[in-house]
Amino acid sequence: MAAVRAAVAGASGYAGGELLRLLLGHPGVEIGALTANSNAGQLLGSLQPHLVPLAGRTLEPTTAEVLAGHDVVFLALPHGQSAAVAERLGDDVLVVDMGADFRLRDAADWEKFYGSAHAGSWPYGLPELPGARAALGSTRRIAVPGCYPTAVSLALFPAYQSRLVEPDAVIVAATGTSGAGKALKPHLLGSEVMGSMSPYGVGGGHRHTPEMIQNLSAVAGRDVTVSFTPTLAPMSRGILATCSAKAGDGVSAESVRAAYEKAFADEPFVHLLPEGQWPATASVYGSNAVQVQVALDESAGRVIAVSAIDNLTKGTAGGAVQSMNIALGFEETLGLTTIGVAP
Amino acid sequence: MAAVRAAVAGASGYAGGELLRLLLGHPGVEIGALTANSNAGQLLGSLQPHLVPLAGRTLEPTTAEVLAGHDVVFLALPHGQSAAVAERLGDDVLVVDMGADFRLRDAADWEKFYGSAHAGSWPYGLPELPGARAALGSTRRIAVPGCYPTAVSLALFPAYQSRLVEPDAVIVAATGTSGAGKALKPHLLGSEVMGSMSPYGVGGGHRHTPEMIQNLSAVAGRDVTVSFTPTLAPMSRGILATCSAKAGDGVSAESVRAAYEKAFADEPFVHLLPEGQWPATASVYGSNAVQVQVALDESAGRVIAVSAIDNLTKGTAGGAVQSMNIALGFEETLGLTTIGVAP
Amino acid sequence: MAAVRAAVAGASGYAGGELLRLLLGHPGVEIGALTANSNAGQLLGSLQPHLVPLAGRTLEPTTAEVLAGHDVVFLALPHGQSAAVAERLGDDVLVVDMGADFRLRDAADWEKFYGSAHAGSWPYGLPELPGARAALGSTRRIAVPGCYPTAVSLALFPAYQSRLVEPDAVIVAATGTSGAGKALKPHLLGSEVMGSMSPYGVGGGHRHTPEMIQNLSAVAGRDVTVSFTPTLAPMSRGILATCSAKAGDGVSAESVRAAYEKAFADEPFVHLLPEGQWPATASVYGSNAVQVQVALDESAGRVIAVSAIDNLTKGTAGGAVQSMNIALGFEETLGLTTIGVAP
Amino acid sequence: MAAVRAAVAGASGYAGGELLRLLLGHPGVEIGALTANSNAGQLLGSLQPHLVPLAGRTLEPTTAEVLAGHDVVFLALPHGQSAAVAERLGDDVLVVDMGADFRLRDAADWEKFYGSAHAGSWPYGLPELPGARAALGSTRRIAVPGCYPTAVSLALFPAYQSRLVEPDAVIVAATGTSGAGKALKPHLLGSEVMGSMSPYGVGGGHRHTPEMIQNLSAVAGRDVTVSFTPTLAPMSRGILATCSAKAGDGVSAESVRAAYEKAFADEPFVHLLPEGQWPATASVYGSNAVQVQVALDESAGRVIAVSAIDNLTKGTAGGAVQSMNIALGFEETLGLTTIGVAP
Repeated sequence: MAAVRAAVAGASGYAGGELLRLLLGHPGVEIGALTANSNAGQLLGSLQPHLVPLAGRTLEPTTAEVLAGHDVVFLALPHGQSAAVAERLGDDVLVVDMGADFRLRDAADWEKFYGSAHAGSWPYGLPELPGARAALGSTRRIAVPGCYPTAVSLALFPAYQSRLVEPDAVIVAATGTSGAGKALKPHLLGSEVMGSMSPYGVGGGHRHTPEMIQNLSAVAGRDVTVSFTPTLAPMSRGILATCSAKAGDGVSAESVRAAYEKAFADEPFVHLLPEGQWPATASVYGSNAVQVQVALDESAGRVIAVSAIDNLTKGTAGGAVQSMNIALGFEETLGLTTIGVAP
Repeated sequence: MAAVRAAVAGASGYAGGELLRLLLGHPGVEIGALTANSNAGQLLGSLQPHLVPLAGRTLEPTTAEVLAGHDVVFLALPHGQSAAVAERLGDDVLVVDMGADFRLRDAADWEKFYGSAHAGSWPYGLPELPGARAALGSTRRIAVPGCYPTAVSLALFPAYQSRLVEPDAVIVAATGTSGAGKALKPHLLGSEVMGSMSPYGVGGGHRHTPEMIQNLSAVAGRDVTVSFTPTLAPMSRGILATCSAKAGDGVSAESVRAAYEKAFADEPFVHLLPEGQWPATASVYGSNAVQVQVALDESAGRVIAVSAIDNLTKGTAGGAVQSMNIALGFEETLGLTTIGVAP
Repeated sequence: MAAVRAAVAGASGYAGGELLRLLLGHPGVEIGALTANSNAGQLLGSLQPHLVPLAGRTLEPTTAEVLAGHDVVFLALPHGQSAAVAERLGDDVLVVDMGADFRLRDAADWEKFYGSAHAGSWPYGLPELPGARAALGSTRRIAVPGCYPTAVSLALFPAYQSRLVEPDAVIVAATGTSGAGKALKPHLLGSEVMGSMSPYGVGGGHRHTPEMIQNLSAVAGRDVTVSFTPTLAPMSRGILATCSAKAGDGVSAESVRAAYEKAFADEPFVHLLPEGQWPATASVYGSNAVQVQVALDESAGRVIAVSAIDNLTKGTAGGAVQSMNIALGFEETLGLTTIGVAP
Repeated sequence: MAAVRAAVAGASGYAGGELLRLLLGHPGVEIGALTANSNAGQLLGSLQPHLVPLAGRTLEPTTAEVLAGHDVVFLALPHGQSAAVAERLGDDVLVVDMGADFRLRDAADWEKFYGSAHAGSWPYGLPELPGARAALGSTRRIAVPGCYPTAVSLALFPAYQSRLVEPDAVIVAATGTSGAGKALKPHLLGSEVMGSMSPYGVGGGHRHTPEMIQNLSAVAGRDVTVSFTPTLAPMSRGILATCSAKAGDGVSAESVRAAYEKAFADEPFVHLLPEGQWPATASVYGSNAVQVQVALDESAGRVIAVSAIDNLTKGTAGGAVQSMNIALGFEETLGLTTIGVAP
């Protein structure tokens, strides 16, 4: 197969940079236009010094003209901007939106959490979810999941799929700071972040909450509620999602283990760890791997599932490449690794 | 009041070091014998280089002879060792155990979680808990709480005291590595810890779980269950405890706020933050302060309370000094600060 | 002595916050007006959440009217702004400038490195330098040294004072990110800083270079040159300065040690470590202590001196308080500690 | 070319783990026996959880029998152990020693710094050094350089090759903690490392010093002296080497730049950054890239060269693979990347 030509809109940010890191090692992709908004005109090497082979490339403005003529266009734009760009790209162009715009199927959810008009929904790029691969196989539009929903959905969906737990899930997740992007905000300064853990968006306000509810409710076949507390951790990359729900009557440790083994038996990127070994974000650093472990706390009567991902890789750019591979007929794992950079 | 003379058994570890840091600034305490086990005979300056005024002190072996003749003896020993030392100290000596030996009132709990014979229980050194101050006022034996139970009990007891929540609590807490002490274990190496979040003791196995249950059940007046997942965070100090429980019928955001305001109105170390501001461990670094915030998640139907402490200060050595102050008739805040070292 | 009343201009930044942390524990100081520029009107608690006792204080604008009526005024302003404020304060008011404006005695140096007109020079607030204490004893104007010059001057001046080394010094220093302040710059984001070391201002361009030259040349009695390379380290606080110069003929390890022991024999904050023990920034975290060690590398023919300070404490706010103590007749160590917060 | 079969002795340590990470992505290598000393018998997945494809492999003891029958044997053993293993492997087997045993050509240097009998010297695996590639092309024995000598030699050799500087170099380098390996030592605990910078081996005692001198003296054609101060930085990976030497008479910024451009013009892994941009270890994280920048400090009269590498990749395992590629006739860059994992 000849290489497909890919453009990246939003190449100066963290998501765009991670995508380029992966595309540079993808044997089926040739990198085309690289665009930015305020950084247009600058050399990529000054903004993403780790992307050595592209150091001399100049960022172009994000316009339909610049993005035209590619087989794939990745959008790594602030939310609310993807629809306008996408509608000017041909229906035969694969558009992979790494932003939030097309993730939610419910317009009211979108409006409540994002405060603007709903742009619609696209096939959801989390292939491990039941039914997702089929929808991705022939699409030319992909909505890449949020990083937290990726970690949480993979940790919990087997429990809901096998009806092991009650419908009210409690989730506390820690993220590295790259999840917040390159925005210049005081609480993201190194001086503030190092040596500190803090929660944010507590009490249901985080925009990834409705996405988790959407995913888990679909699998459960009934309404699931989610109490989600994200916390900012002193590290650049990684999400550790600690998820639990009340165990149903008669659920045993064996039935829990069996459900998870079955769910992930054929998944190339999800690794259900041996019993007793728990995920660590360091183990998946820079990789598309997902570490999952699950246990039944018999005293508290809860199933506890923990997952670790790299928020920029499996949580964003790696997930985007994985879904692109499916949509374009590449092998699903092409250009991706399960091997983390550790220690 | 003349200064009391204090001995510290276990002066070479992190808890002992933090205690000495605080005692050096305590106007009512004179530092006497410093003991250690395997480090006996060494200069403190080589093991605790930050304790400049004590750099030339030599560590003595932990024996009853060495510890005799002090008004206060602090024990920072591995669990299981405190009882043998304490029983050789006079009843008029204030013994403050920073280990676990005398925290649990239920012998079966002790045996289940620690695997040895129960040594008994002493007045519990968390003055903010209902009834605790009175018990500490005249005692000569104090069991300093575990670091996690301190953070969790302070975050949740007002909700249980005011009967705002159901009896099954879900807690995910992140701790800095100093909580694990100076033990030379592979997973505590800097190379493993930096850039990584990982859980441990998942599923009810952590030894601090029965202590949380003991505290919350006493306040609630009924059996509380606790699902507790501790995680190791890439920082030296600090605990961020994210705690939640299902809200009772008719509980409102106002009633939740009011309960917490009432519980902490007169507490010198607990700071219920202004609404919308959430705790950060950096803010309490090196201080005895506790930051607390609480919210009602109406969608998920849960009360979410978050606390931040320094595990070595309020979580261990600062809590010990605070309780000592009460027992000796000092002002409760003497030698302690609410001001963190930030950023 | 009745407490003096102190105002702090620039209370929302890191230097101002650290100063307030120290002043809150200073028995001779009462905290008066707190001012800011763009943050005027905000509650201090929202900007400096660790300063609990001042959480309810509102920041005022930095005007002469607001700053009037205090015994001491600390200026923590961007460089170039101090002179205008200072000249409107009375000659009897002690003005302590934590900025750069009055550090350099040579107007040409100022203009070359700062690009503006020279405001003059004030007595230099590094009491440990030969002759400095006398000049501080009666002054009402103090120029607090830069953080790097503090660390470097203390590491090297004994070698120059005792004429042990050649006049060309080579210095590589690592600093925590708080040294760069709260400015919102991309390279100071946590995501960029964590896990990375990088140099900046290489080749003589750093503004602290002429200040080091000024200090060392004065002690040496001849022109000293300085090759200074600062590096940004993944930590919030601390400076580790590795300094060396070619050893003079006949210089022995013993003569080096003796010179340093003599220089620091009576210094309350400078700790020449026992031979073989080297400074670590963690040991001085949050304290006014300076750790120094020195060695003669006989193979390379160089004297190597290393110092560790907390850039915000001894390097800025602690140094300011120490000099204020001298100027006001307080005990020099009042309100300051030599004990770091470690680990 | 059919894949070569590689054994790794010392697969449970950091160097061995990094090597396996690279070999798993090397299209010309098939991974054979994996051995360890005290960890023999354990599953690799429990020790190196990031190496997912090898999780089920059991570590074997490090014996000649186990290592027999491979085309390449990598030795990642404590120093002093490589010779005994290597002499039992056939002359036609490529042996790549990632330890120190065969790096030094001078037996007296070895004995002085390592305190044991000299095992000899092998072709030195730093292909970028003048003359090194030729020696590697046909060898069956490779001595992989130390991590610091790699960073320092690449930063400085062009200056010595072009006779731009005096023969006494001053080097201060910061390293991530993985450079110290997995040894359980108190100063390597996360609690000690995070938030702290500290030097070690000051004054010429570090074992990598004679290796730097050997490399630079060979290039300079005369005896070079090196003052080397390594410092431990709060990060897992990375070396930042700040190197300088007095500029020779008449040396200009242009001549310095030209010498470096010429030296690295054809090097696939060394990136001389655009003028004004300085290396950062984050940019080379997990890659085989070397970032170099150089400047002339005209005031201090010194040439300052700074390099950044990943100590585990280019500094150890990546360098080993690069040299193996040359010795086996693979393309030199096969299985290696210049793209770092950032941020």
